[in-house]
Amino acid sequence: MTDAFEGLEIRSLVTEEGDLRLSLESVTLSEPQADEVIVQVQAAPINPSDLGLLLGPADMATMRAGGTAERPVLTLTIPERRLGAVRTRMGESMPVGNEGAGVVVRAGANVADMLGKTVGMLGGAMYTQYRKLRGRDCVVLPEGASAADGASLFVNPLTALGFTETMKAEGHTALVHTAAASNLGQMLNRICLADGIPLVNIVRREEQAAILRDIGAEWIVDSSAPDFEAKLVEAIAATGATLGFDAIGGGKLAGQILHAMEVVASRGAAFSRYGSNSLKQVYIYGMLDTGPTIIDRTFGLSWGVGGWLLTPFMAKAGPEVVGRMRQRVLDELKTTFASHYTRTIGLAEALQPDVVQAYQNKATGEKYLIDPSL
Amino acid sequence: MTDAFEGLEIRSLVTEEGDLRLSLESVTLSEPQADEVIVQVQAAPINPSDLGLLLGPADMATMRAGGTAERPVLTLTIPERRLGAVRTRMGESMPVGNEGAGVVVRAGANVADMLGKTVGMLGGAMYTQYRKLRGRDCVVLPEGASAADGASLFVNPLTALGFTETMKAEGHTALVHTAAASNLGQMLNRICLADGIPLVNIVRREEQAAILRDIGAEWIVDSSAPDFEAKLVEAIAATGATLGFDAIGGGKLAGQILHAMEVVASRGAAFSRYGSNSLKQVYIYGMLDTGPTIIDRTFGLSWGVGGWLLTPFMAKAGPEVVGRMRQRVLDELKTTFASHYTRTIGLAEALQPDVVQAYQNKATGEKYLIDPSL
Repeated sequence: MTDAFEGLEIRSLVTEEGDLRLSLESVTLSEPQADEVIVQVQAAPINPSDLGLLLGPADMATMRAGGTAERPVLTLTIPERRLGAVRTRMGESMPVGNEGAGVVVRAGANVADMLGKTVGMLGGAMYTQYRKLRGRDCVVLPEGASAADGASLFVNPLTALGFTETMKAEGHTALVHTAAASNLGQMLNRICLADGIPLVNIVRREEQAAILRDIGAEWIVDSSAPDFEAKLVEAIAATGATLGFDAIGGGKLAGQILHAMEVVASRGAAFSRYGSNSLKQVYIYGMLDTGPTIIDRTFGLSWGVGGWLLTPFMAKAGPEVVGRMRQRVLDELKTTFASHYTRTIGLAEALQPDVVQAYQNKATGEKYLIDPSL
Repeated sequence: MTDAFEGLEIRSLVTEEGDLRLSLESVTLSEPQADEVIVQVQAAPINPSDLGLLLGPADMATMRAGGTAERPVLTLTIPERRLGAVRTRMGESMPVGNEGAGVVVRAGANVADMLGKTVGMLGGAMYTQYRKLRGRDCVVLPEGASAADGASLFVNPLTALGFTETMKAEGHTALVHTAAASNLGQMLNRICLADGIPLVNIVRREEQAAILRDIGAEWIVDSSAPDFEAKLVEAIAATGATLGFDAIGGGKLAGQILHAMEVVASRGAAFSRYGSNSLKQVYIYGMLDTGPTIIDRTFGLSWGVGGWLLTPFMAKAGPEVVGRMRQRVLDELKTTFASHYTRTIGLAEALQPDVVQAYQNKATGEKYLIDPSL
């Protein structure tokens, strides 16, 4: 066959003028190599981790729509003081979308058995109609699983499993998680319930607490409640958590978690001017609040706060651990790792101002799926 | 012999009323066991790490003098909001002084050869006239070394060596240090110059920069200069430092160091929304500023900030590394690890309001030595 595959894909460009420009661009794929496949993408989630590349640090209030209905163009202004963070991507039209799923429509000689199969993919540039990649970078979905079932096979499931693997590797026995009613947070609850890992869920609203109660979460603490700090200490005392994963990043929450851990660790112990010897760690993996992290060091010297990212974690954990994690995701695709989407949109729809505003809000329980074949 | 040794020692007490009370108390020592010695303490430094226990979080402006000239009592108020940090030491009269040196005046049967020797000691309660401890917790000083020479054998030297050992263990090749003109900072410069470790010194005043220039420091950056951030980037680029040790703790400095490291790490690299893969770490080991640490996360997700403390470091490093560190300190006692004291004071003098105020200021270049035998 020699017909080239042509399709549209979402691109994000930071211009030299400091604008962020979203558009649909036409892309032509050449024939796959012997080890490659071409996948017609049918489902790609909008994860919080995609928004950093898609929208960058642009000011949402400056959104201007242009182009046509089929080929919309959306322009946003990046505040001057935020330009430094995106200088290295200026002028480069960047494809977006960490993960997705679809049907193999062309396969190289060495991977011919994948033709027609529905596969999950990780590797970026998934907000596109056709994606070429190595066959071994695809995972063939189990019988009966749709592209939507397999669209979120990697980012949230592997991140949630990465939390419990990090916990074990670093010698902790229980976890604290913030923004805990998120899709990822719900998965983490299902993993922890199945594996007997005590988990303290921190949420910011009663309705989020209700979501978690419904799926059987035992420890839920509402940071907007007046007795938040006391309840957090109570939950940490009951679970023995000395490790937290924080999706919020900005503000005082990471420090509050460390402080509560120290209150528990120093109970009944003799006074030490350096605080307890209990190593208390919070990893920041998200940026729901992009403001500064404020750490009031009221917890001695055995503490750490740091960034956590899936890719370096997997590189450090090694192929055996990662293989085990991947297999579990496939085995429990429709249970533990099921994602629920509140809305499915097409590529052009994903660039409509009201839609962008909606998925950018990251409201709890809302999750968007892009179907580029619509 | 049956004469008991009786002497005075400094005590720090947090009362139930929330006062901090400093006094001299009389202590009587029984005969040493077979493995023990009694040392007449002749020199014990006032390190920044001693002040936390000695003065706690008391408000210096509330200092009231009482007692007699020989047995002074000093009382300070602890602000209500700071009481939580000292609740576990309330009512307990605590001896102070991490390290010191003196002459062995009594020795148990198994350590009889130590009698009359001048020894260095680590173990707390050194602001005292006579200290009983196990012979193996003393280090016999080299021929010709005085008690003053051996008084600061542990805290600063082992901390400075701990920084370079941590650097090697965690895969870094150069260091950033703050409050770099301190006694500890000067030692660190001598170590790094001898070992060929590039070191970026951050100071806050020109006179501190001058101190470091005089001892041959190559990279000195003044955080009060208008071009501080640019100079810091330049020094980090030249040295390749990805690890910092921070004595200050509060404020934005730790974050600024991480930011400068990231600027260097991402030079010439393709844009990544998660920042560079270069792991950037700052350890906070002091509290010159007790305010919150403010981390503006402008450096991706490969970063960490945490507490660093000598004792857990040594426990983790193991006896071989610690043995090597201790031997080096003894070998280079009068060169690399020489401490210079600006004033020597007696026990009672150490509780005079003007003297307390002076050593509490922690002015660069000033260092106090207590000689309890005065």
